[in-house]
Amino acid sequence: MPTDTLPYADRLDRLRTHVKERGAEVAVLTPGPDVEYLLGHSVASHERLSCLVVPIAGSPTLLVPQLERLGWAGTAAEDAVRIATWLDGQDPYALVADLLPAGTARIAVGDHMPAGHALHLRDAVPGSELSLAGEAVAALRVRKSAAEIEELAAAGAAIDRVQERIGEWLRPGRTEHEIAADIAAAIRAEGHQRADFVIVGSGPNGASPHHEASDRVVQAGDVVVIDIGGPHRGGYFSDCTRTYQVVGEPDPEFAAVYDVVQRAQQAGVDAAVLGATCESVDAAARRVVVDAGYGEFFITRTGHGIGLEVHEEPYMVAGNSRPLAAGMAFSVEPGIYLPGRFGIRIEDIVVATEAGPRRVNNCTRDLTVV
Amino acid sequence: MPTDTLPYADRLDRLRTHVKERGAEVAVLTPGPDVEYLLGHSVASHERLSCLVVPIAGSPTLLVPQLERLGWAGTAAEDAVRIATWLDGQDPYALVADLLPAGTARIAVGDHMPAGHALHLRDAVPGSELSLAGEAVAALRVRKSAAEIEELAAAGAAIDRVQERIGEWLRPGRTEHEIAADIAAAIRAEGHQRADFVIVGSGPNGASPHHEASDRVVQAGDVVVIDIGGPHRGGYFSDCTRTYQVVGEPDPEFAAVYDVVQRAQQAGVDAAVLGATCESVDAAARRVVVDAGYGEFFITRTGHGIGLEVHEEPYMVAGNSRPLAAGMAFSVEPGIYLPGRFGIRIEDIVVATEAGPRRVNNCTRDLTVV
Repeated sequence: MPTDTLPYADRLDRLRTHVKERGAEVAVLTPGPDVEYLLGHSVASHERLSCLVVPIAGSPTLLVPQLERLGWAGTAAEDAVRIATWLDGQDPYALVADLLPAGTARIAVGDHMPAGHALHLRDAVPGSELSLAGEAVAALRVRKSAAEIEELAAAGAAIDRVQERIGEWLRPGRTEHEIAADIAAAIRAEGHQRADFVIVGSGPNGASPHHEASDRVVQAGDVVVIDIGGPHRGGYFSDCTRTYQVVGEPDPEFAAVYDVVQRAQQAGVDAAVLGATCESVDAAARRVVVDAGYGEFFITRTGHGIGLEVHEEPYMVAGNSRPLAAGMAFSVEPGIYLPGRFGIRIEDIVVATEAGPRRVNNCTRDLTVV
Repeated sequence: MPTDTLPYADRLDRLRTHVKERGAEVAVLTPGPDVEYLLGHSVASHERLSCLVVPIAGSPTLLVPQLERLGWAGTAAEDAVRIATWLDGQDPYALVADLLPAGTARIAVGDHMPAGHALHLRDAVPGSELSLAGEAVAALRVRKSAAEIEELAAAGAAIDRVQERIGEWLRPGRTEHEIAADIAAAIRAEGHQRADFVIVGSGPNGASPHHEASDRVVQAGDVVVIDIGGPHRGGYFSDCTRTYQVVGEPDPEFAAVYDVVQRAQQAGVDAAVLGATCESVDAAARRVVVDAGYGEFFITRTGHGIGLEVHEEPYMVAGNSRPLAAGMAFSVEPGIYLPGRFGIRIEDIVVATEAGPRRVNNCTRDLTVV
C-alpha cells in the first residue's frame, strides 16, 4: 500500500468528479486493482458479486457476499465506505439497483468487471445504459503520487538486484524451467509477494515476446531474454528485461543488433518528457530500429503503464495521443525478434517528472556475457 | 483434456444452435474455460483482445494478438477454426466487427469477458446490443461427457488420497500456513496442475467459509475444516472438504453438530436424482440442518457445478429451478458455522446419472480424529 495517510476518501471524491465529467451517474467496480486503489484492499469474490458502488452524489457502498464479509474486517474500507452484505439466494443485482439514485440512466462499470455482472446489472436497472469507468479511474491511477513512485522505485531496485545475479543461474546445460525456478525464488526473496512472470527465452525461444520458459537446454553462446517481475510487498509491480549472451565472445551480429535495441531504448526514454504524447515515445524508439533496417522485427508496442497492475494505462503505442504528465509510470521496452534465431529486448520502468524521465531500473543495459 | 477424439467441431456446432435459440447472431468469447472447452486450449491475453467469434451461420474465427500466435501453434484450434491475428496499434474491435455478418444486432458475449472488451465491441458495431452467451455455453458445458466424468473421477480420487493423509500434517503446534504448504505440495504430487485453494480453518477460523490459512497455531482439540482442490492434469477440478478434530476424545457438541452436517450432506446427495431441481437439492440438505435447530448457521448455498472451473453451472441454491440431467456434476457441501467457535463442512462432488447420484469423492465422511 502507498504510505499516504488514508488517501482513500480523497480518491473516492476525485473519482466522482471524473465519472460525472464523463456523463455517468454512478461507477460500479468489482474487486481488483481499481478497488485496491480506491479502498486499499480487495477481496476476489469469484462468481458471487462484490462491488463498490460510487454515485456522483451520495455515499459510496461496498456490497459483498455475507460469507466474504470477514475478509474486509479491519481494513481501511470499513472507514471509507458503508459495507452491505447479501446472502446466497438473494439477487445481488437488485440490491445494487436499490443503491442507485432514482432514474439512473448511465452506469459506468469497471473495465475489468465480468460481462456477466455488467449485463445483469444493466438488466436490473430498467432504462439504463452501460458505459466504461476505465477512463475515469485511469484519470486518477495514471498519475502516481510521491508515495506510489517510491513503491515503484523499491520494486525496481528489488528486481534490479535479481538481474544482477542472473549469472548465478543462467548457465549452459540447464533448462529454461530450472533457471526460471531459481529466478522466481530470488524474486520472492527480494520482497515480492510472488513472481508474477519469469520469461527465460533462450535462442529461438527469445524470438517470441511472450514465451515464458520451456525444457529447452541453454547452450553456450545462446542469446537469452530475461523478463521478470511481480508485485512487490506494497502491491506495486516490478518489470525489467535484460538480454544476455551465455559464455564466449559476443557474437558480432548479436552485438550489432543489441546496439540497435540499446539505442532505441535510450531514444524512447529520452522522448518521455512532460507533454510529449505516448505515441511519440513509441515513435522515437521505433525510428532507431526502422533506420537500422529491423523495423519489421519490432512487433510490439514500445511500452505499457505500470502500478497496481503490470499492464495499465498509459500505453506507449501508435495512435495514443495522450500527453505525458508528471507521475506517469510506464515501461520502455523496444525489441528485435528474429524468427528461428533469437530475440533482444531491453526494458526499464520510467517515471515522467518535472526534472525529466526517471528510470527506476538501473542495472546495466550494456551487453553482458554471463 | 477430455479424451474424446476431437470433440471441438461438434461443440462449436452445438453452441451455434444454442446461441441462435436465444436470439443472438454471434457468440464472442475471450480466453478462459469457455474457450478451453470449445477449442481444447486457451491462452490468456491480458489487456490485448483475444476472442473466439462464432457466428450462427458461417465459420468461426479465433482472433489473437500476433505476438501470442505461437501459443496456439500445434493445438487442435488450428484444425477447428481459422486463426487471424492483429498487431499493436490496430483496432481489434473493428477487426471483430468485420468478421460479423452484415446487420448484426445481437452479440452474445461470454460471461467472463471483461466489460472493457464487451463495451468496446458493442461500440464498434453500430446498432448492436449485447446479451450474455453464458446460458448457451452452459447448455453444453453443464452436462459432462463420459470422458469428462472420467476426468472428474480421476481428480476426485487424487484429492481423496490427499485427504486420507491429512493426519501427517495436521498436528498441534503447527500453523495453518505450515499445514497448508504441505497439503499444497501433496496436491501437486497427486497430479494436479496446481493447488488452487487450500483452506485450513482451525477453531474459530473454520466459522468463516472462505477463510484460507493464517498464522494461527493449531491446538489439541481444535475442530479444523480442510477444503482443498485444483485443476487435475486433464484440466478438470477437484474440490473436497472434510472436517477433523485434532487429537483427543471427540467433543460431544462437535460430534452432535457433525452428525447433523453428515446427515444433511447425505440428504443432499440422495436428492440429486434426474429431474429433481437444483433448489430441491439445496432444500433437502437445508431441511436437516433447520430441523436440528442450526438453520441460521448454514449461511451458504449447498453447492456449485464443477468442471473446467471450480465454480460453474449448475448451482444448488434457492431459486434455481433447473432440473438435474444426466452428466451434471456439482458439489454437495452443507455446513454449520458457529461464529467465534468452529465450523463444520462436508463436501463431495456428485454426478447425476441414470443409476442415481454418483459421488466422485469416497474418502470417509465419518467423524475422524487425527
